[in-house]
Amino acid sequence: MSVNAVIPRLAELANIGRHEGGIDRGLATPQEHAARERFAAWGREAGYTITQDIVGNLFARRAGTRAGALPILVGSHLDTVPTGGAYDGAYGVVGAICSLEFFDERNTQTTHPVEAVAWAGEEGSRFPLGCLGSSVFSGITNAQTALVLTDMDGTSLHAALASTHAGLLNGVPMRESLKPSAYLELHVEQGPVLERECIPLGVVTAIAGQCRYRITVEGESGHAGTVPMDLRSDALCAGADLVLTVESAARTIGNVVATIGRMTVEPGATNVIPLRATFSLDVRSPEASRIRAVDASLRDGAVRMQCDRGVRVDIEQLEARAFAPMDARMRQAVHRAIASLNMQAIDLPSGAGHDAMCLSQIAPAAMIFVPSIGGRSHVGDERTAEADLRRGVEALAAAIVEVDRMLESN
Amino acid sequence: MSVNAVIPRLAELANIGRHEGGIDRGLATPQEHAARERFAAWGREAGYTITQDIVGNLFARRAGTRAGALPILVGSHLDTVPTGGAYDGAYGVVGAICSLEFFDERNTQTTHPVEAVAWAGEEGSRFPLGCLGSSVFSGITNAQTALVLTDMDGTSLHAALASTHAGLLNGVPMRESLKPSAYLELHVEQGPVLERECIPLGVVTAIAGQCRYRITVEGESGHAGTVPMDLRSDALCAGADLVLTVESAARTIGNVVATIGRMTVEPGATNVIPLRATFSLDVRSPEASRIRAVDASLRDGAVRMQCDRGVRVDIEQLEARAFAPMDARMRQAVHRAIASLNMQAIDLPSGAGHDAMCLSQIAPAAMIFVPSIGGRSHVGDERTAEADLRRGVEALAAAIVEVDRMLESN
Repeated sequence: MSVNAVIPRLAELANIGRHEGGIDRGLATPQEHAARERFAAWGREAGYTITQDIVGNLFARRAGTRAGALPILVGSHLDTVPTGGAYDGAYGVVGAICSLEFFDERNTQTTHPVEAVAWAGEEGSRFPLGCLGSSVFSGITNAQTALVLTDMDGTSLHAALASTHAGLLNGVPMRESLKPSAYLELHVEQGPVLERECIPLGVVTAIAGQCRYRITVEGESGHAGTVPMDLRSDALCAGADLVLTVESAARTIGNVVATIGRMTVEPGATNVIPLRATFSLDVRSPEASRIRAVDASLRDGAVRMQCDRGVRVDIEQLEARAFAPMDARMRQAVHRAIASLNMQAIDLPSGAGHDAMCLSQIAPAAMIFVPSIGGRSHVGDERTAEADLRRGVEALAAAIVEVDRMLESN
Repeated sequence: MSVNAVIPRLAELANIGRHEGGIDRGLATPQEHAARERFAAWGREAGYTITQDIVGNLFARRAGTRAGALPILVGSHLDTVPTGGAYDGAYGVVGAICSLEFFDERNTQTTHPVEAVAWAGEEGSRFPLGCLGSSVFSGITNAQTALVLTDMDGTSLHAALASTHAGLLNGVPMRESLKPSAYLELHVEQGPVLERECIPLGVVTAIAGQCRYRITVEGESGHAGTVPMDLRSDALCAGADLVLTVESAARTIGNVVATIGRMTVEPGATNVIPLRATFSLDVRSPEASRIRAVDASLRDGAVRMQCDRGVRVDIEQLEARAFAPMDARMRQAVHRAIASLNMQAIDLPSGAGHDAMCLSQIAPAAMIFVPSIGGRSHVGDERTAEADLRRGVEALAAAIVEVDRMLESN
């Protein structure tokens, strides 16, 4: 049965980009391209219409019964963080296509066309914009803005998508963005709540707000042996001070998380005082005021560094995504579908960002979570029990049918 | 006059590996190889005997009058730190060969042969060992140990030296290490003392002791949006804490400098809590007890990180070089030579490490410094006035003659 196919398909995708520490599938790399190829092949075999758009979002459409009805979109992403796991994103994409095949098996007809979709670059992998594909699709980011983004090597997204082994798929027709009638996304929780509560399914109430920054500290370089400590403007020491300032602020403010995940030091020699430290900052909370409070601490810290350490601090805000509540009627429809299968679900918020944040701007959106073992995610060994993976797909398929019905009753 | 040649020759070398931010000539790169080629060409044109050894040290010998006399070595290095300057190292190598030519012009004979030498990889550039070539030559490091060192890409020094465009020079005969009768090194001060004192020459009393470490902090990775602050073991936050611990210790202890010049964060994604932070530490002082005190603070801090933050800290000591006093009789000879030219000089210690540290283990050694403008070094725009550069070479040539005489009077 197609619901069972979710297991071998996830295993197949997990082999693409896998190395010792986890899976690397940055957007528009040969690995991520290969994953999109697999998705397109599954869709083609099932007879669905495959299309893609200019930033690499990929769609597999199963027709509906009413001509001209706008599609229900169901999906997630195929890219991973560096040394990522097998389920984050891939599960929602595979779950979507398995749901469509489940309808074929059961001769289930939907009024609206249903499209399984793989959004491009949700993780901000390779190119510095999270939810890249869904953000462009939803009109939040201009496509031209996204296409000129460059990776760490200076390659643009445009150039990457034009390359044969990493870019857009050969022979797949291009499409324009099209407003969907609704959006559903199946995802692993990436946190500990469902496991702790012993409940196999979650219905997301809202996705936390998020700000991303790039912070550059510029000090004065010099010889590690000849400049006395009190005459230094060491960019890394000032950067370390800011890291701890932000960490301490987030702990004190509460109900907010702040992460510095990336840091580079230049010139980066053991015997040279750092000239420049550049780091990322990611701040999330379900309450905008708490994100603002961390932002204020960061800026206070920057001023303090400039006064006390003689460095220049440049704070560049790259993204600011508001708290995104999921649609109330959609959540009810999902709950009805889950109840109809005699399964249990609870409501919970999502601390992680998802493509559903962007889609919720243009269509009613909802998300279903399955448990993450130990709450672990963004790591190579993230795991979800197979029974939970299958159960999630069943719930998704039922939710699609219920949402199709709900849209009709509008 | 050959003393004037120091200026155009330094300019010529400065063009090898130059880019916007400075000069990059890591050991056994095509750029550093090209600099060695230039040195060999100058030596050949002047009729000196060119030889090299297994780790890439390069020698140009001007014969002495007494058969079997051990050579006086005079030199420095041609490699640079990343985005380094035009004088650090190169000045001492060019100054040495210019001194030999100065003897030719004046028909100056020395009893001992004099060899101009370019030591391989003084900066720890590309391969993780400072004073690599002079350390091997002096028997401090085994050649086989040095040859299996690998760069950041995993290439061994052995492989790098075997490559055509980066490695050992073609057609230059190999030689064994040979105990010299004495060692002289001319170098830019890299600090502010001579400029501040308005004295054009310095005679080094001793080179500061130095310890180098690689420190690895391992925490727990996870999703930047879902793991609450108080459940994190963030490797970068712990690393930042250690950076500030070491900085603060060095400030408090005094007469010691501690530098974290390099740091990498893994997996290095904006939305992933850091699993691992790896950084270098370079500690220097003319007093061993102060280096030990910084070491103790580092180790205390590591224990504190393990208790308070649940991370694992691994401290690997890569190098420990004792305080290296210069030879008293050599220093006197250098002072006599400078006085004979009616030039002024003061004694001063060197905070920076030099090949002379290693050579002082096997031969009487001395160093001459010229002023660094603004005391700046290990930066692309380090500068020394042309008059000071020429004056330093004159002093070096006179010092060689004086040392040759001194050795005879032994």
